[in-house]
Amino acid sequence: MTADPALHRIDTPRPLIEELRALLGDRLSTSASVREQHGKGESYHPMMAPDAVAFAQSTEEVAAIVRACAAHRTPIIPFGTGTSLEGGVVALHGGITIDLSGMNAVLRVSAEDMDCTVQAGVTRKQLNDHLRDTGLMFPIDPGADASIGGMTATRASGTNAVRYGTMRENVLGLTVVLADGRIIRTGTRARKSAAGYDLTRLFVGSEGTLGIITEITLKLHGIPEAVSSAVCPFPSIEDAVNTVILTVQAGVPVARMELLDSATMDAVNRYAKLDYAVAPTLFFEFHGTERGVVEQAEQVEAIAADFGGTEFRFATRPEDRSRLWQARHDSYYAVLATKPGSDGMATDVCVPISRLADCITETVADVEASGMMAPIVGHVGDGNFHLLYLLPPGDEAEYARAADLHERMVLRALAHGGTCTGEHGIGYGKMRFLEAEHGEAVAVMRQIKAALDPDNLMNPGKVVRA
Amino acid sequence: MTADPALHRIDTPRPLIEELRALLGDRLSTSASVREQHGKGESYHPMMAPDAVAFAQSTEEVAAIVRACAAHRTPIIPFGTGTSLEGGVVALHGGITIDLSGMNAVLRVSAEDMDCTVQAGVTRKQLNDHLRDTGLMFPIDPGADASIGGMTATRASGTNAVRYGTMRENVLGLTVVLADGRIIRTGTRARKSAAGYDLTRLFVGSEGTLGIITEITLKLHGIPEAVSSAVCPFPSIEDAVNTVILTVQAGVPVARMELLDSATMDAVNRYAKLDYAVAPTLFFEFHGTERGVVEQAEQVEAIAADFGGTEFRFATRPEDRSRLWQARHDSYYAVLATKPGSDGMATDVCVPISRLADCITETVADVEASGMMAPIVGHVGDGNFHLLYLLPPGDEAEYARAADLHERMVLRALAHGGTCTGEHGIGYGKMRFLEAEHGEAVAVMRQIKAALDPDNLMNPGKVVRA
Repeated sequence: MTADPALHRIDTPRPLIEELRALLGDRLSTSASVREQHGKGESYHPMMAPDAVAFAQSTEEVAAIVRACAAHRTPIIPFGTGTSLEGGVVALHGGITIDLSGMNAVLRVSAEDMDCTVQAGVTRKQLNDHLRDTGLMFPIDPGADASIGGMTATRASGTNAVRYGTMRENVLGLTVVLADGRIIRTGTRARKSAAGYDLTRLFVGSEGTLGIITEITLKLHGIPEAVSSAVCPFPSIEDAVNTVILTVQAGVPVARMELLDSATMDAVNRYAKLDYAVAPTLFFEFHGTERGVVEQAEQVEAIAADFGGTEFRFATRPEDRSRLWQARHDSYYAVLATKPGSDGMATDVCVPISRLADCITETVADVEASGMMAPIVGHVGDGNFHLLYLLPPGDEAEYARAADLHERMVLRALAHGGTCTGEHGIGYGKMRFLEAEHGEAVAVMRQIKAALDPDNLMNPGKVVRA
Repeated sequence: MTADPALHRIDTPRPLIEELRALLGDRLSTSASVREQHGKGESYHPMMAPDAVAFAQSTEEVAAIVRACAAHRTPIIPFGTGTSLEGGVVALHGGITIDLSGMNAVLRVSAEDMDCTVQAGVTRKQLNDHLRDTGLMFPIDPGADASIGGMTATRASGTNAVRYGTMRENVLGLTVVLADGRIIRTGTRARKSAAGYDLTRLFVGSEGTLGIITEITLKLHGIPEAVSSAVCPFPSIEDAVNTVILTVQAGVPVARMELLDSATMDAVNRYAKLDYAVAPTLFFEFHGTERGVVEQAEQVEAIAADFGGTEFRFATRPEDRSRLWQARHDSYYAVLATKPGSDGMATDVCVPISRLADCITETVADVEASGMMAPIVGHVGDGNFHLLYLLPPGDEAEYARAADLHERMVLRALAHGGTCTGEHGIGYGKMRFLEAEHGEAVAVMRQIKAALDPDNLMNPGKVVRA
């Protein structure tokens, strides 16, 4: 151990490292490469490595690690798949990262009750593979094959949320390790409850700052009898967005309704060798009975036609549908690939649907006036959209310009009654926007943080200042 | 004021009463009848009157009342329509009740975004009347014409929850007056957000123990194009429940699915002069397009037929539908009317749907073995059901027998993975069951209570011990 050169920069007390080594053996790593790999998500936030990475295998082990860290007043950062976009896993104050990817057992599936319990390291694709023969699915899909623990901790959502809700609506209960090592269970398997404070919802979206989520009980949904997908280009973003607004208002239970702008469509075509029109485009998916799916598609087609969206391309064969949605999922990587080597700065606001066209139009005008490029994708059925800035690493001027545009976009969304993050979370870069959005309520968040983590050891420096 | 004989039993400091009188004038009442009317809900819990009732008209006024009470360390109890079933409004430790029924303005409706903001005293029927011309509705329906503030504070649900969710899913944001008089706003009008701790969900269901909810931003839903209702008797409760289970599992998006047992049907027939079969009966409602509603009803009819439910009676005309659902809503009062003068003890558990038949069957057997009567109604699509005990006021032996049966019912529900309350809340009678259900997590609830209400002034003695 002493031969490891990485130890030279460790601030974490050596006795703690020795204690954790005794507990975990090889499953404690202080190697530079492992630490660096755990010190960064998928975004532009600079890497800051933890002092060691603990690979946990059970809730009890997580509790033992937390107790040891607490005794040494050492920060603790939970880590799933590292697909965070707001610096959630960055070790701002050093400390120990607990990697939960080894806790990847599906503990229980109840097909009758349409629910399951998984360990935090199970990924959404792994869960859906596991469910394949049950007729059930877990629909929340943020794009990345994130861990269920990480998705819970950031209140993730993605393409299916317009119909199936976000992690907020789909988590029934949790096992959580608190800052002092206590293990609690929140919620039950009942579909609803009026029993006490909703601790489940308090931990969903708390980004590891109140405790470490180790097990999650999830609602599942029946795989629909029929699924069909469609793609439709529009003359303008506004036409596409207006189609979305009317579709939502008409109560059509669309499962997915995604906007990609011309720049993103161009990137996707190149990346995935596709031949879609290079125009603002909506991707739809319809779930239901055979008749219901046809009815939904007809309703949406009629609405789209009123806004110049006359070229619906349907995909009903499973392989065509996967190809279509793979293209949508790859859009982040497709856009990044247009300027290889760039850092991606993904923005993420969400507004009431009636303000969506204005908010996007104003934002596009602001970006165009600046001379920058920032392709747009959006889960527009929820009023949620992202601009992706491609930044040359180290170019401070470009970073500053993007940051200015981003700040104006967030303040614009707040002025429209929206939120500074629809699904990516606060991490450490958006804490000032949290204040702008919630005002005095942030003081209440801080009181809760202080009550549950008085020594500020749980993912410190994220979400709220201690 | 000094002539008021009720003042003799006031524990609240006289200077506080004088301060509040200066603030509110006639809108502070210390009359015995007003105090007594505010010291009891609709259940068997004995009346305990507050020392005065403050009729508030604005959030700022609530804040001023709370600041005055806080300065005098005097308990504060929020009051909406007084339809609480778990003693939530009982003034266990005296103090000031804040009656919010005068805060009954619908502040804003955005038809485009399908949301609205209301003051806490607006009732659900008032809101739906207000919405009449918008094509929108607020579907949560606990039976009583409760206030939206009270429904939020108890995480209410009722007959439509199987399709539209509970207050947990339908509140977007809140204005809350905290224990020290600070006013915070939680949430935004965005449909989803990953911005910080979910304070909205923390206050939903907190029963006035963390703060006083004064304004609520709600999701609304489109009034469906078509609605049809149906009633179907079954050979046994088990057959009815199995129909429910298969309907849920088949993913039929039923809007309402209610069980009434033979005793309740008999009471309803007498109370509302109806001629339904005296048998375990399911009430259904289907919402959707014209075609969709027919499709749903066909699916459910086929499932019911497999369990001996062959006599579907449909009601598609609005007046027939209202009559049918009025009968369901009146069932609580209908059962009470079978033994005039009785106290009603409504129980309320919720279990995973696969355990529903077992849980009801075991409970019925236990009640029958005791020789007591307790008609059953249930929001069975959610796994939620109620037994209603009719108790002679003051008969301690009967109360004790009912309490024993109730305790066994709750512990049975917990053993089946359920909750001690699906929708009525904890109040003060179910605190020991909260401990049984959540164990160590109750300590976390207590930490949050202590952080936000360190002097234990907000509805003290309810939900969690300070």
